[in-house]
Amino acid sequence: MTTTAVPDSTTGWRATGVAELAPAELERIHAWWRAANFLSVGQIYLLDNPLLREPLTRDHVKPRLLGHWGTTPGLNFLYAHLNRAIKERQQKTIYITGPGHGGPGLVASAYLDGTYSEVYSDITEDTEGVKRLFRQFSFPGGIPSHVAPETPGSIHEGGELGYSLSHAYGAAFDNPDLMVAAVVGDGEAETGPLATSWHSNKFVNPAQDGVVLPILHLNGYKIANPTVLARISRPELNDLMVGYGHKPYFFDGGYDESEPPLETHRRFAALLDEVLDEIAAIKARAAGGDLSRPMWPMIVFRTPKGWSGPAEIDGKKTTGSWRAHQVPLASARDTDEHLSVLEKWLRSYRPEELFDADGRVLPEITGLAPEGALRMSANPHANGGLLLKDLRLPDFRRYAVDVPAPGGSTSEAPRVLGQWLTDVIRLNPDNFRIFGPDETASNRLQAVYDVTDKQWNAEYIGPEVDEHMARAGRVMEMLSEHQVQGWLEGYLLTGRHGLLTSYEAFIHIVDSMFNQHAKWLKVTNDIPWRRPIASLNYLLSSHVWRQDHNGFSHQDPGFIDHVVNKKAEIVRVYLPPDANTLLSTYDHCLRSRQYVNVVVAGKQPAPNFLDMETAVEHCTRGLGIWEWAGTETAGEKPDVVLGCAGDVPTLEVLAAADILRRELPDLKVRVVNVVDLMRLQDATEHPHGLTDSEFNGLFTSDRPVVFAYHGYPWLIHRLTYRRAGHGHWHVRGYKEEGTTTTPFDMVMLNDLDRYHLVIDVIDRVPSLGSAQAGLRQRMQDARLRARAWTREHGDDIPEVRDWVWPDAQDLADGDQVGATLGTGGDNE
Amino acid sequence: MTTTAVPDSTTGWRATGVAELAPAELERIHAWWRAANFLSVGQIYLLDNPLLREPLTRDHVKPRLLGHWGTTPGLNFLYAHLNRAIKERQQKTIYITGPGHGGPGLVASAYLDGTYSEVYSDITEDTEGVKRLFRQFSFPGGIPSHVAPETPGSIHEGGELGYSLSHAYGAAFDNPDLMVAAVVGDGEAETGPLATSWHSNKFVNPAQDGVVLPILHLNGYKIANPTVLARISRPELNDLMVGYGHKPYFFDGGYDESEPPLETHRRFAALLDEVLDEIAAIKARAAGGDLSRPMWPMIVFRTPKGWSGPAEIDGKKTTGSWRAHQVPLASARDTDEHLSVLEKWLRSYRPEELFDADGRVLPEITGLAPEGALRMSANPHANGGLLLKDLRLPDFRRYAVDVPAPGGSTSEAPRVLGQWLTDVIRLNPDNFRIFGPDETASNRLQAVYDVTDKQWNAEYIGPEVDEHMARAGRVMEMLSEHQVQGWLEGYLLTGRHGLLTSYEAFIHIVDSMFNQHAKWLKVTNDIPWRRPIASLNYLLSSHVWRQDHNGFSHQDPGFIDHVVNKKAEIVRVYLPPDANTLLSTYDHCLRSRQYVNVVVAGKQPAPNFLDMETAVEHCTRGLGIWEWAGTETAGEKPDVVLGCAGDVPTLEVLAAADILRRELPDLKVRVVNVVDLMRLQDATEHPHGLTDSEFNGLFTSDRPVVFAYHGYPWLIHRLTYRRAGHGHWHVRGYKEEGTTTTPFDMVMLNDLDRYHLVIDVIDRVPSLGSAQAGLRQRMQDARLRARAWTREHGDDIPEVRDWVWPDAQDLADGDQVGATLGTGGDNE
Repeated sequence: MTTTAVPDSTTGWRATGVAELAPAELERIHAWWRAANFLSVGQIYLLDNPLLREPLTRDHVKPRLLGHWGTTPGLNFLYAHLNRAIKERQQKTIYITGPGHGGPGLVASAYLDGTYSEVYSDITEDTEGVKRLFRQFSFPGGIPSHVAPETPGSIHEGGELGYSLSHAYGAAFDNPDLMVAAVVGDGEAETGPLATSWHSNKFVNPAQDGVVLPILHLNGYKIANPTVLARISRPELNDLMVGYGHKPYFFDGGYDESEPPLETHRRFAALLDEVLDEIAAIKARAAGGDLSRPMWPMIVFRTPKGWSGPAEIDGKKTTGSWRAHQVPLASARDTDEHLSVLEKWLRSYRPEELFDADGRVLPEITGLAPEGALRMSANPHANGGLLLKDLRLPDFRRYAVDVPAPGGSTSEAPRVLGQWLTDVIRLNPDNFRIFGPDETASNRLQAVYDVTDKQWNAEYIGPEVDEHMARAGRVMEMLSEHQVQGWLEGYLLTGRHGLLTSYEAFIHIVDSMFNQHAKWLKVTNDIPWRRPIASLNYLLSSHVWRQDHNGFSHQDPGFIDHVVNKKAEIVRVYLPPDANTLLSTYDHCLRSRQYVNVVVAGKQPAPNFLDMETAVEHCTRGLGIWEWAGTETAGEKPDVVLGCAGDVPTLEVLAAADILRRELPDLKVRVVNVVDLMRLQDATEHPHGLTDSEFNGLFTSDRPVVFAYHGYPWLIHRLTYRRAGHGHWHVRGYKEEGTTTTPFDMVMLNDLDRYHLVIDVIDRVPSLGSAQAGLRQRMQDARLRARAWTREHGDDIPEVRDWVWPDAQDLADGDQVGATLGTGGDNE
Repeated sequence: MTTTAVPDSTTGWRATGVAELAPAELERIHAWWRAANFLSVGQIYLLDNPLLREPLTRDHVKPRLLGHWGTTPGLNFLYAHLNRAIKERQQKTIYITGPGHGGPGLVASAYLDGTYSEVYSDITEDTEGVKRLFRQFSFPGGIPSHVAPETPGSIHEGGELGYSLSHAYGAAFDNPDLMVAAVVGDGEAETGPLATSWHSNKFVNPAQDGVVLPILHLNGYKIANPTVLARISRPELNDLMVGYGHKPYFFDGGYDESEPPLETHRRFAALLDEVLDEIAAIKARAAGGDLSRPMWPMIVFRTPKGWSGPAEIDGKKTTGSWRAHQVPLASARDTDEHLSVLEKWLRSYRPEELFDADGRVLPEITGLAPEGALRMSANPHANGGLLLKDLRLPDFRRYAVDVPAPGGSTSEAPRVLGQWLTDVIRLNPDNFRIFGPDETASNRLQAVYDVTDKQWNAEYIGPEVDEHMARAGRVMEMLSEHQVQGWLEGYLLTGRHGLLTSYEAFIHIVDSMFNQHAKWLKVTNDIPWRRPIASLNYLLSSHVWRQDHNGFSHQDPGFIDHVVNKKAEIVRVYLPPDANTLLSTYDHCLRSRQYVNVVVAGKQPAPNFLDMETAVEHCTRGLGIWEWAGTETAGEKPDVVLGCAGDVPTLEVLAAADILRRELPDLKVRVVNVVDLMRLQDATEHPHGLTDSEFNGLFTSDRPVVFAYHGYPWLIHRLTYRRAGHGHWHVRGYKEEGTTTTPFDMVMLNDLDRYHLVIDVIDRVPSLGSAQAGLRQRMQDARLRARAWTREHGDDIPEVRDWVWPDAQDLADGDQVGATLGTGGDNE
């Protein structure tokens, strides 16, 4: 990637009027389009004879014909016309390809504007380069058939459909000079995430943010069906777009065979100028202080699927039908008939007029593109790492809660984090945002509203209900996990920072989006010209152990399992047990690059265990022995190890340790807390993994380990099963046994409670067993008592609810339990 | 649940004109609404003194205040009015509660119409019953705060939002006499799945299907924000609904304080009559043969959030704001001020006018409801198992492919399945549908188009492009996994059958929907009055090992992992290795109840291994030794076990077994194939699990097992880690190492290929090891050769691509390889 400086910010948003294009200019646009189409078809079909300088033979055709043609010519047409307009207006623009299948088109366009050869030096601008360009496409060891990280200018991978507009808006936020031309496929438009993402326009600030120009590519067909939006009346489609808050401009091209191509180009160029002038006018009004939501223009681009391809194949209508979706000539290598159609099709673009003798595209054609970083394929916003600046992070230690003794104070950990985030926002006013599905306050980050608001550009009613809402703000909330994740991804991919807060119980909604983003990160790690971007940070603050308001109806802790399936170099999972560890963890997350960081931290009031100094040490190690909680003798192995990961499991393990020290004072108990889940893995499997000797030093290789875990227990087995001592591990975790409305009832339902953990210890330490049948029975009784109390009173039994770690109790007996940071409403 | 017969199908769709309701009838509607609201508020707050027959004290208030008030009064209002209209028109109707938070409202309504006490005999219709009704709500051991399986009349669980309309349409398909009143929350309306589900109206046949009446509950607020649709202009909202294909009717209620309540009721009743008459007219036109898509009416129901609750609390506007979302009086037990507001609020419904001396709601109020199965809470469609009929299934053995020897024929397995499904459709013309996101043909089920079509009621262009599309058809395709899964769920929950075909690579899109449905099934297993419904069947036919067209950009095989996290009694995972086993498996799936069956079967041409008789035996066992593939000596333990699960892994294991029998003829190899993945688990953990002795009989407890698996390898470890021999297991599977465009290249990338499996055997069988360094080297060389060939030719090396099992080769040498069932285009 060239590191050409970003164009001066005074460029852009020029109103030029509708240009009267000279025939030569129209010819140039048409030539670019033919060249792009030729290069696209060549990629799909040709192994050799790239410029058709000899008659096409079967051997020139690839043995496996893969890829998609249908959407490609439309994408190429738009790219050509945008080039003309960008050059004229010097308008910084990136191009989002909703129809990701159109990979060959975007590769062809990047090749034509020169970017491709700049970033891939072996794809030269000559016959040999064209041959390599063709051959590599959807070929073993080559490039994907979809728009991909390998495609210069892209921040939006093909594959799963539905996120083009969300990504586009994410890219536009805080980029006031950037236009994002977002092509939406009419197939993609049927997906849920895309259908709601049109409403993104209610969240745009017309002065501070860039402009998204949605272009609905209405080519009419999916794999095997017409599209819904192509089969409703034009008035209905118009109403739909107006209802979404847009002013639609309709363009029909390619259907009227009597229209000369240059006239089609002239009409579209005029329409594009009209649209861009309207955008410039909106921008001018915004610059003048009118920040109200305009009806942003959008284009309905109705052209035939497979436009310019063979009208019929084997007697069946192909262009303008779903039959053009993929590879229309499946037998081009096998039958002379198909081969001949292919040759005719390729020659219809008149390659002899497009390439010089060396196989270089004629400069008068490539000259359509703007220069340098104004080229859409070279725009640095589409390689966000180029623009990424470190966040200015306030010292998180200053936000520490006071922990006079373990358990000696109580916090809602995310509320503490919120105070630090407030200053993160203050210090980084234009490159950091918080995203969430209507849950930022519910997840206890409301301190941020001291310095910012929720950005909202729909109607206002009045201050008595419209709290913390403004036309500019750092918090982005809409009730769609898809939407907010898509926005955040677009924001990160263009070189900014952010986090997403959500309920753990519903984060599975974006499982597939996580997959796509993780894949993007993994692939970009191997693309030298792609610079690292900020990590995608989750804060899951309403977790499955405290579903008080939502007992029974919420989901599971399996997002962690889903995440851990991805490559180790991409994913991190943190389970900070209290407020100070959460602060330390999040500071680390916001400094990191190219990861997906999943942080799970409950929002309910909970004891703090570590003062800041200890918390930093603990988080730096990622896991460690809590000596103060155990009863070991220095230099001797413990009798049993109590492990814990997650805030609720940690609380129960400490309560169990407390029981054990009182009931079995001679038992040597070690307590190990895990913050960084990946530390449990083998060093050979994850960069954060422990070596065997480190691992055995913590957990021993031969003592029983009773491990209380936040999620499904088998994940802990998975992470540890290669360890020597794994046979001695006994893991308690989430069991899908149902949920309930009081915290201790919930842990009891899943056998993760303190009493059950003590029973586990008795059952697993050989020296206890039947000797402690009495204690075992008392633990059973305590459970039954707690269950009965809860059923009777609707709340947890006081001996459980009010339990504190003994050191904190001593403190309380002497003076007072450390101050509780205010707790507020329990929203959902 | 009463088993009252379904009302005669001649009921319904009556046009009555706008009723002139007598004041007494309006009073009755208002009294029902007050009673429902009183019972709702009581559930949220009261532990005792349910009818306020004494002054309210703090002790009467629950210690933990949980639940949601905001949406409830609107839901109650609609329920009351629908009662009136249903009774008048004898219109079979079910009620879908999009705002699932409104649990108390639906429980209250079911209590008022008598259903609740019928299904829960301890919730009696007297003071004690009301007390128990209140106490159980969101209480440990009680009922959820959301609409749930426990709620009579519901097929739509609260919790995750977004599927109310999809479920509603699923319920309406093939139920021509049923109206589905679907209340859509304006929060829910922001989700992606809901935003696209409005387009469901393009898939309705107005004669053969029922009617969905969407009611957008525009109460203006979410947890902490206004809703988007409440903050766009009315013309914009009108356009949006028209653009979605609806004729919107707007109702505003509760904002004009000068309007008497009865006038509000009169206006809504009139509007509802107008809407229902319009529906009746559409139905009459359809009965007369006009099947074209009408603009179906829908209602925008704009009323204040928390309507009828306290206007202000603590000096802040509450009713008509987001502050009414959850529990408006959080301190009702803690402060006299809140307690007094609560009492005033409860008394505002004048309970003394609603209940008789025994605490029974006055019969003149409950008389508003229709009778028997016409009550929305008692409608048997909302307890689909009551209506479920077994499918008539043709004998799948008749569709068997001929397998003269293992590997002796080739099929695209789903194409074979499609022929059987064709007759399933023929035999079950009105209670079986196939759902998919535009992939039914791509997944090779196109034989079904011999007997049916894709149902489509948007515009038609002409037969040259609109193949297999009609206003009535058994195949439902829209490019939204959310939509088609939601439709299928609604169809199943109302007592019908179906399956969903999708690409494995994208099925993570519905992870959270699977979660919700699995939870529903699990909970209903414990609700005696809920009858079992047909299983939700997936057919994932474009799997991760054959991403030819989509190399690099598609996702992973992790859906299986996600599914296996759920309770064993709910989930089944099948990996049939060929066509006959797929037939046998699917026959089993379509006969089953209350499961989620995940079947993964590749769509590419692949060898058949088992004739039908053997396939049935194999599938009945779920796994077994393939003696013909091994080289054991009877009565002796094998030296090594090659295990496989999945079609591609099975092929590679057989190819490895072939190499081993040629290269190491003395090695005793056993081949075990697994169809039913759950068989690997312990019998104590899954109903399908093997006992240890069965397991050891297959895999031994001390011989090396090299296991080739379709998905992430650690799942096999998870399923088997408690087995005695697990330390000897070595699993190969999907490694996230990237994807490519040729099949063998793909398996090599993941070290699952035949050569690597042979190396695994050499490395793990003690008697081989260094003695076979030569063979090991030749395997390495073969891999390098295959890789180089692929990179050079873009296709797999012939020795791999054309390999067949030796018995088939013998057959070929003698005569011919068995006929290949036609293979067609490779669509995506």
